[in-house]
Amino acid sequence: MPTAVFGHTNPDTDAIASAMVFASFLRKTGVPAEAFCLGQPGPETQFVLKAMKLTAPEPISALPGGSTVALVDHNEASQSIDNLPDLRITHIIDHHKLGGLTPSEPLYLRIEPLGCTATILARLYQESHIQLDSWEAELLLSAILSDTLGFRSPTTTATDRQIVHDIQSISNINELEDYAAKMFQAKSDLGDMPAEQILKLDYKRFEFGGHPYGLGVMETTNPGYAFARKQELIEAIRAERDKGGLDGVFLFVVDILRETNQALVAGPDEEAVLRGAFGAEVVNGVADLGARISRKKQIVPVLEAYLS
Amino acid sequence: MPTAVFGHTNPDTDAIASAMVFASFLRKTGVPAEAFCLGQPGPETQFVLKAMKLTAPEPISALPGGSTVALVDHNEASQSIDNLPDLRITHIIDHHKLGGLTPSEPLYLRIEPLGCTATILARLYQESHIQLDSWEAELLLSAILSDTLGFRSPTTTATDRQIVHDIQSISNINELEDYAAKMFQAKSDLGDMPAEQILKLDYKRFEFGGHPYGLGVMETTNPGYAFARKQELIEAIRAERDKGGLDGVFLFVVDILRETNQALVAGPDEEAVLRGAFGAEVVNGVADLGARISRKKQIVPVLEAYLS
Repeated sequence: MPTAVFGHTNPDTDAIASAMVFASFLRKTGVPAEAFCLGQPGPETQFVLKAMKLTAPEPISALPGGSTVALVDHNEASQSIDNLPDLRITHIIDHHKLGGLTPSEPLYLRIEPLGCTATILARLYQESHIQLDSWEAELLLSAILSDTLGFRSPTTTATDRQIVHDIQSISNINELEDYAAKMFQAKSDLGDMPAEQILKLDYKRFEFGGHPYGLGVMETTNPGYAFARKQELIEAIRAERDKGGLDGVFLFVVDILRETNQALVAGPDEEAVLRGAFGAEVVNGVADLGARISRKKQIVPVLEAYLS
Repeated sequence: MPTAVFGHTNPDTDAIASAMVFASFLRKTGVPAEAFCLGQPGPETQFVLKAMKLTAPEPISALPGGSTVALVDHNEASQSIDNLPDLRITHIIDHHKLGGLTPSEPLYLRIEPLGCTATILARLYQESHIQLDSWEAELLLSAILSDTLGFRSPTTTATDRQIVHDIQSISNINELEDYAAKMFQAKSDLGDMPAEQILKLDYKRFEFGGHPYGLGVMETTNPGYAFARKQELIEAIRAERDKGGLDGVFLFVVDILRETNQALVAGPDEEAVLRGAFGAEVVNGVADLGARISRKKQIVPVLEAYLS
């Protein structure tokens, strides 16, 4: 069976694009591989795939024991396929912090503190002198624009910008800013999507000093949409917290264009955490976290330090 | 303060050579860095450094809290500097299995299933188009020959061979086989070294299913030397086991030229483990493990599977 390549659960554009491109990279180096995803693509990824005339990878939730797998854009069991301990991990390509996996055999593992997994993949192609196809370059560009919020996120590095510069000419994307604006528009256009689904669009579980938390991010050009549905979303947050046996769940509403973050707060425990960790006051169920728009760089380390 | 670069405790040639070369690599990319070692170089490494007219890095056992560090040739806290949890890890370059570190921030982490950390470092130079100096090429070659036992170990990959082929012309080492033979001769020439020091020449601690073990390897062209001092070595093994609160300690005597492995067995518990894990019988305190000459590839995974 080919190596199964997939990103984290509740996949974002980087998780899906990186799975598709790394599977293709492996095939080009002679390793049979197939991309999958752990959940349905969200509206932004659907826009990207449609623009590139690509179909989404097949969603899966488990694989037969002993299957070989490659993880992209995550390296923690809690964000991965259900039966990861039964599988043989051959590769991990990621840009998140190291999460404590201990596979029994050496594997190819590459984690770099860059804005996007796709940036690392572009470097792999360059280093191996393997040519990117236009669809691969387009997926990688889309993932970099998505993860860096069009280079606005503090996670953006000079390497991410350099890679975009290097590979844009291989793609059919001519106007980067215009394309990014359309991606963010698609991401923001949630129609009547159920509140629990909005919470899960970009949602990850973390353990902070042994305390399980769920952190959802809603990146949008239209934060008013979230506040109009605030009560519904707070109910979805409470349901997720109780169902998952979590100490707390947050939904961070990030205004991509104004670069602000306002968290929806479901109860007094969550309020105390945001006040203690960030010094934020809660008004009408909303905490203003200022310009902290990166979960990875500005939210997770602060919660980790406060709760550990 | 410059980034401190070091390999594992009880350093072998790869641990020391990789620390020296990666510190130099970082400096060439504009990052102030200095190599250290966690323990004194053994006879093989002393031979290599003398042949290259290089001085050994300074030995350390702890660093001021908050220091930035780069780990080479290991990625487990139990094989690293005493106060690792107080330090900021910026890089890990290794070829061992992932051991469960969870630093709080993203870092540059590269682990590849190759024969030697030095091979990964040579690739870093190639990928970055940075020129190797002759002393760097010589250290990398020495480390690869050491870790692969002159390409005899089953851990040897085509990439290790390719890198040696690529970089030999930069070095002043003309006759690889002759040079490797001299290295192994130096490694085997232990004179009247105390038994406890011989045990620690290439010694690592592991946790197998929560059980702490110590595994020493004595790679030699002269296994008769070990058997002549068997009783002393078995006493050193017992002392280390009791002092370290370990479930068991082994010293594997690997004949580099004949590619055989004979383990010194200190007691009935160790005997039961070797019989259960490898089907090996113990005769006069020695268990014949056949051609299993690689601790990483042929000993550790078997003990892990058996004891977990």
